[in-house]
Amino acid sequence: MLHELLAPDLRQTLDEGDDDALREFCEALHPADTAAVLYDLDAATIWRVLKTCRLETRVEIFESLELVTQFDLVHTLSREELSALVEAMSPDDRATLLNKLDDDTVEDLLPLVAQAERADIRRMLLYPEDSAGSIMTTDYASISDDLTAAQALDHLRKQAPDKETIYYVYIVDEQRRLDGVITLRDLILARPTRPVSELMTRDVVSVRVTEDQEDVAHEVGRYDFIAIPVVDEMHRLVGIITHDDIHDILREEADEDAQRIAAVEPLEDDYISAGVRELALKRGRWLTFLAVVAIATGILARAFEDGAERFAWAVFFLPLVLAAGGNAGSQSATLTIRSLSHQAKGRAFPGLKLLGREVFVGLLLGGALGLIGAGSASLFFGLGPIESAVVGVTVLAVVNFGTVIGLLLPIGFDRLGVDPALMSSPLITAIMDLMAVLLYYGVALWAIERLLPLA
Amino acid sequence: MLHELLAPDLRQTLDEGDDDALREFCEALHPADTAAVLYDLDAATIWRVLKTCRLETRVEIFESLELVTQFDLVHTLSREELSALVEAMSPDDRATLLNKLDDDTVEDLLPLVAQAERADIRRMLLYPEDSAGSIMTTDYASISDDLTAAQALDHLRKQAPDKETIYYVYIVDEQRRLDGVITLRDLILARPTRPVSELMTRDVVSVRVTEDQEDVAHEVGRYDFIAIPVVDEMHRLVGIITHDDIHDILREEADEDAQRIAAVEPLEDDYISAGVRELALKRGRWLTFLAVVAIATGILARAFEDGAERFAWAVFFLPLVLAAGGNAGSQSATLTIRSLSHQAKGRAFPGLKLLGREVFVGLLLGGALGLIGAGSASLFFGLGPIESAVVGVTVLAVVNFGTVIGLLLPIGFDRLGVDPALMSSPLITAIMDLMAVLLYYGVALWAIERLLPLA
Repeated sequence: MLHELLAPDLRQTLDEGDDDALREFCEALHPADTAAVLYDLDAATIWRVLKTCRLETRVEIFESLELVTQFDLVHTLSREELSALVEAMSPDDRATLLNKLDDDTVEDLLPLVAQAERADIRRMLLYPEDSAGSIMTTDYASISDDLTAAQALDHLRKQAPDKETIYYVYIVDEQRRLDGVITLRDLILARPTRPVSELMTRDVVSVRVTEDQEDVAHEVGRYDFIAIPVVDEMHRLVGIITHDDIHDILREEADEDAQRIAAVEPLEDDYISAGVRELALKRGRWLTFLAVVAIATGILARAFEDGAERFAWAVFFLPLVLAAGGNAGSQSATLTIRSLSHQAKGRAFPGLKLLGREVFVGLLLGGALGLIGAGSASLFFGLGPIESAVVGVTVLAVVNFGTVIGLLLPIGFDRLGVDPALMSSPLITAIMDLMAVLLYYGVALWAIERLLPLA
Repeated sequence: MLHELLAPDLRQTLDEGDDDALREFCEALHPADTAAVLYDLDAATIWRVLKTCRLETRVEIFESLELVTQFDLVHTLSREELSALVEAMSPDDRATLLNKLDDDTVEDLLPLVAQAERADIRRMLLYPEDSAGSIMTTDYASISDDLTAAQALDHLRKQAPDKETIYYVYIVDEQRRLDGVITLRDLILARPTRPVSELMTRDVVSVRVTEDQEDVAHEVGRYDFIAIPVVDEMHRLVGIITHDDIHDILREEADEDAQRIAAVEPLEDDYISAGVRELALKRGRWLTFLAVVAIATGILARAFEDGAERFAWAVFFLPLVLAAGGNAGSQSATLTIRSLSHQAKGRAFPGLKLLGREVFVGLLLGGALGLIGAGSASLFFGLGPIESAVVGVTVLAVVNFGTVIGLLLPIGFDRLGVDPALMSSPLITAIMDLMAVLLYYGVALWAIERLLPLA
């Protein structure tokens, strides 16, 4: 890999203190590649490298660094160095970084930032986390509708160097209300004298500045846009969100889903850079809750204590009964949660159809596992037909309950407007454990009291 | 939502048999919106609507339909209707659909498709599933390097209507080897007389046609590209993969991860459209394997049968001991698996650093849960200090084992070149169950034999 080849070279150049060679190194590679090579270095050394290059390149490399590294760098820079960097950053990457800094650091910094950028920063910091406003960039290309195609292209040529993308050009009126959109492709193909007002698409798909980033990702994915415009409550254009941001959102949302499914509250950043305190709290709260359910399961099991000596064998199949219900349940729950999170807003989830299918699948799976359970009870433990049947029937029943509950509980949460991923696999498993113990001992007791005397 | 408003209108128009109105309906909306409105209709009715509109619009709407709906439609169309549709589809969407059809249907269809498209289809069908070749489009914009910027723009104007994107233009030599890339933005900004060879970027980031789609998504995400070129083993340009395909890949890969983590073999399509047979098999194989482990756990527990009457209380804390280890383990496993799947290729995973942290977090979580366990043993079950300590110590130990195993096993799988997501949460839970029972009964037996007599 590139960075493994280049890292030793870079170290040598650093040892020699050759600033010209460092600058050349920064300018030669794609900023994302330079950032990858710098990955293993400490903040002070990374800054020594970045300082040698032009501000423009420095900012691009800085933006390509991971957020934790950016964060480390912030604390090694002087206020002047930092403000120059922050001023030159693209608005969306800047907002992401500043949102992570404490308020005092930001307030300390702002007076050194140019007036226009400062206003932009203050506005962006007001939008709630994970809203469209917090991830958009304000560097979009816009024109008014009284231009011709050729004039529009001239305008774009002047705007281009500062804009995140010029492939979608937005048409706004004097109040900056969003009137239309035209792609650069259409502008290039159009007769130069044609007015933009004739060429533009007027029904612009846009998102509100307060909309959740996950919904934004859905919209962009649905239309395959390169960028989507963000408007305020007056339908004024305030920013755009580009395809690369969508990439980050999808990754982030899939991580959050996976974490919730595993009973971890969503982490601030990634797992690798999370602190002990954060991990302990975000895992601990769920583990504690689940432990309480497990203790309750034990208390429930004690209710059967009187009959228990008559079915001491039952404990050996407790792992199977608990695992079968829990596993079948978390399979269904995970499949359902991911399906719900892909579901387009406002489209009905075919819950009833899926319920029928889960019941059927549950019977098949439960039947197979029940046979395996009953078979091993008789083969490996030498249990009689009635005891073996108790194991088999219980497994059949818990697998069925598991598949149905794994489907219905996330759907129920979703209907209530709660994130269905909260109905995590461990929670389903805990509920299933409770039910499984009740059912297992109940069936065992009934069989022993009613059936054994008949046999 | 749009489609809820429009669906009743559409139904009425269908009842009236007004083809002109149907055509107007198709042409008025964005194809993705039309597809959403058609979602609930049966294949024959969808085709009645699509038949009324222009081929170009018909294809765009068809491509926006979900794959299962496309599949249903294929089986309601005549060979002639289908071949016209397939011929006009964009190469990547077409390859996705044809890959789903059985070979006979495809062979039946191909003679009706125009020669050029037919060759393209045959080539694309050769690439392995989930490879760059199977998802790329062959409709890219390319020029030779002997043009000026103005000439290049003229070329693009001619190519534009057929190309997936013209925002990245690839420069190829006579053998179609990839020499460079230039963005439309750069072309527009350049002095018209400047030669493309001076303007283009020569170090083009590209992917091989056989590369896995997940690695392609990583590359695109790293550089924030709108598209990435795909080359063959001779470095000849054979296609491009665009940002919207990356969106689909990310969703698909996140789903596969989630399914593996929940012990479901990755489904062909989505959960909603999966068949009973597929679900039963892809869930059943894992459930069976896990059931066997659970039965083995029971057999292991029987080894302690002789001492068991002396610690009959132990069974009431079995749910807690099993749940604590399993939950802590699946938390760590899920966090590790998702981190590994984000890891850039060739960058070392900081396993050792994470191991230290997991041990520490495991001690904190295990300590807390152990105290809760020991406390409830003494409070709710009236167990003595030694018995309560057995519960507490066991919980502490299994949580620690869980966190460490949940981290190390996926890393180990990854090092061996196996998908770490195969080290699923239920599998970790099953392993933890085995260890937990061994440890729990072992500690209990030891405590009762060695400590109780001393007390």
